[in-house]
Formats: sequence, C-alpha cells, structure tokens
Amino acid sequence: MHTSYEENKDVLLARLRKMEGQVRGIQQMIEDQRYCVEVLQQINALTAAAREVAILLTEDHVRECITSAVSGEDQEAMIQEAMKVLRKTLRP
Amino acid sequence: MHTSYEENKDVLLARLRKMEGQVRGIQQMIEDQRYCVEVLQQINALTAAAREVAILLTEDHVRECITSAVSGEDQEAMIQEAMKVLRKTLRP
Amino acid sequence: MHTSYEENKDVLLARLRKMEGQVRGIQQMIEDQRYCVEVLQQINALTAAAREVAILLTEDHVRECITSAVSGEDQEAMIQEAMKVLRKTLRP
Amino acid sequence: MHTSYEENKDVLLARLRKMEGQVRGIQQMIEDQRYCVEVLQQINALTAAAREVAILLTEDHVRECITSAVSGEDQEAMIQEAMKVLRKTLRP
Repeated sequence: MHTSYEENKDVLLARLRKMEGQVRGIQQMIEDQRYCVEVLQQINALTAAAREVAILLTEDHVRECITSAVSGEDQEAMIQEAMKVLRKTLRP
Repeated sequence: MHTSYEENKDVLLARLRKMEGQVRGIQQMIEDQRYCVEVLQQINALTAAAREVAILLTEDHVRECITSAVSGEDQEAMIQEAMKVLRKTLRP
Repeated sequence: MHTSYEENKDVLLARLRKMEGQVRGIQQMIEDQRYCVEVLQQINALTAAAREVAILLTEDHVRECITSAVSGEDQEAMIQEAMKVLRKTLRP
Repeated sequence: MHTSYEENKDVLLARLRKMEGQVRGIQQMIEDQRYCVEVLQQINALTAAAREVAILLTEDHVRECITSAVSGEDQEAMIQEAMKVLRKTLRP
C-alpha cells in the first residue's frame, strides 16, 4: 500500500513546492511588517493548500484499497487500511 | 449505496439524541447568562460530536464501497462513490 | 465579564433553536435511511451554525474587554481575558 | 496597527523557518514514496504550526487594539479592527 500516490507524485511535489514558496512569502511579509490581516490571509491560503494535499493522498489511498480488494487482497484488511487513512485525515 | 450506515443506525441516532441534549444545554446556559468561556467549551464539545457522526457515516460508506466493488459492482463507480463522500466530509 | 453577550441573547437563542431543529432533522434523515452524502451536507450546515455562534460569543467578549479596559478596568487583565476566549475558540 | 506583532517578529520568523523545513521534509517523504499515513501525520503537524502562527498574530493584534483604545484611540474603531482580525482567523 506504500506507493498509493505514485501516479500523483509529480502533482504532489508541484503543490508542495508552491507551499514552500508560500511559507517563504509569509516570512518576507513578517520581515516587511505587513498588515496582520494580509499575513493571516496568506496563512489561510497555505492551510487550504495543505488540506488539498491531504485530500489527494487520502483519495489515492482509498482508491488503492478498493483496487487491491477487487484484485484479491483480503477485503477486511483493505477496509481497515482505508479507515486508518481516513481517521488520520479526519481527526487531525 | 443509500443504506451504507444501516448497521450503525442505532448508534447514530443515540449520538444525535445526545447532540440534541447538548444544544438544549447550551440554550439554557445562554438563558442563565453563564460565562462565555464555559459556553464555548460546550459548543466545542457539540462540534466534536458532529464530527464523529460525520466520520462514522464516511467510514460506513467507504466500507460499503469496498464490499460492493468486491461483490462485483463496477470498480470505478465504487471509487467515485467513495470519493464523493470523502470530499463532502473533507471540504465542509 | 460574565454577561458579555447579553445584548445578543435573543439572536443567540434563535440560532440555537434553529440548530436544535437541524439536529432533529438529521435524526429523521437517519430514520428514513437517506443518502449518506445528504446527511453529511446537513451535518456540515450544523457545524457551520455552531461555528457562527462561537464567533458571535467571541466577538461580544472581545468587544466587552475593550470597553472595560477603556472604562478603567485593569488593561492587562482585560487583555488576558480576551486571550482566554480567543484560545478557547481557536484551539477547539 | 500594522506592526502589532513587532515584538514577536523573531518568534514568528523562527516558527516560519521551521515550517519551511517541514514542507521540505514532506517533499522528501513523497520523493522517497513513504507510507501515506506518515505523510499525513507530517501535513497535520504543518497545519497545526500554521494555526499557532495565526493565533499568535491574532493575539498580538487584539492586544494592540486594547492598548490603543486605552491610549485614546477611538474605541469603536479599535473594536472593529479587532473584529476584522478575528473574522479572518475564525472563518478561514
């Protein structure tokens, strides 16, 4: 199950590089003593981006669990595997 | 897919009745002009309870999608069905 | 500080009564075995309503802290009081 | 009001640099095709760190609003200023 996001690897890395740029942008805003509400706006954007990466990973994993169960993997094991990921994403 | 939570129906109803009691309790706190921080504590407890109900529904649904896919339902349709529920829970 | 939301009491109670109706509506949906995605939609609506009540309480409290500080209450005590409420709302 | 977080500037920058390291760590985990649940754990840690920065900025701003109001700034303007920040943090 460890490579459930393999097909989306480039998409995930592109999003994470964008997030790295967002964090550096926020550092610069703090250096420049920009208005607090504008900084909060950028933090919200970063958090939303992180959420989307988590959703993508979760979707890939659940997809993999369904495919594996259909391909003959133990059904209950695949259900438990899907639940493990869901709980990690849903109870942060 | 519409009855994916059928086995958990009583659990869900018991939780929702408890939540109804929580909402009425918060109303009484407002009537009694209780301290704002205590009211917020109870609102947080209600929100956590609602989250747990959403998690239970989501888990039941994903479980049902896996079971149905293994039982011969169209695999891609089951994946899309699981995604639909995930997105509803993860992007509230 | 205990009655910081006094002026908004009726607004808060009206919202909480609507939330009570929402919880009962979700119970009925479960009884009727309605489609899981529709139930999740209603749970999201309930959670958003709870969030708005928390925001209203927090705003009233911070407003009260500012007013009290200007009226001669100890400034640092009022700052700490505002922080207490903020933390309760922001780290649920 | 634009420099409400001036005293915490170094703390904020230290936290943001740590967050930058977290984002790069997640990139490496994706490169290494690490197990999805471990990646989600790190995304949750990053989101929590972003939340703490937002809370710090919000607290500094509300503190500044109270101090300014006591120092003779228009009370209602300071209340509105505090509300603007609260809403940005509470409705991300």
